[in-house]
Amino acid sequence: MHRSRLYGLFIDTPHRDAPAAASFWSQALGVPARPVPGEEQFTALPGAFPNLTVDVQAVDDAPRYHVDIETDDVDAETARLIALGAVEVARWLDCHVLRAPGGHLLCVVPVHSDPEVFAAHARTWP
Amino acid sequence: MHRSRLYGLFIDTPHRDAPAAASFWSQALGVPARPVPGEEQFTALPGAFPNLTVDVQAVDDAPRYHVDIETDDVDAETARLIALGAVEVARWLDCHVLRAPGGHLLCVVPVHSDPEVFAAHARTWP
Repeated sequence: MHRSRLYGLFIDTPHRDAPAAASFWSQALGVPARPVPGEEQFTALPGAFPNLTVDVQAVDDAPRYHVDIETDDVDAETARLIALGAVEVARWLDCHVLRAPGGHLLCVVPVHSDPEVFAAHARTWP
Repeated sequence: MHRSRLYGLFIDTPHRDAPAAASFWSQALGVPARPVPGEEQFTALPGAFPNLTVDVQAVDDAPRYHVDIETDDVDAETARLIALGAVEVARWLDCHVLRAPGGHLLCVVPVHSDPEVFAAHARTWP
């Protein structure tokens, strides 16, 4: 038995445009834009949406959004989503990058939220 | 003075793959997949995230996510976001489609949420 929930919305932006994107989204959503210590590719937009992490991420790729699903069992959640039809396309540290049926990228990551937020909102899988 | 907030996450999927995408995301997030009466291109995923509309949308385009910002003044909000650097790329009914700095699509739409949700979470702009 494990648990998971939709955790984050990531605004993946080519490196050269990431500062402009962070500035735009910060002002568009009325929240600060904060560097994430130790993870320089991310700019957090804290408060953009209650209990949803929203970050600009600088990437070596075309602009895209992706979502993260956080879980207390990354292997089990990854296997569950693959059984539903997703395909694993990359792994980066603890993050499993999957492509969903229909073509969208999502990442499965360990729990990043406050424990009480995860406990309140995660769904339980057999 | 007007108000706005991040309102929705849309999983835009080529028509032929949209049913598979709706089935996947429904099971991945543990919520029903419900057709939206009168707007056949949408499949709602109610309960996917508190106070955030999450839908699969069938599109004539490559797979992508986009976000919607809802507002009590579409023209003022569109003008505000254009002043921040976005470019209007299309208009569809009441929806203004903008491309943000960095390249991401977002739509500005009239308030769709319950009035109390909008009142509780929207930000106010001068």
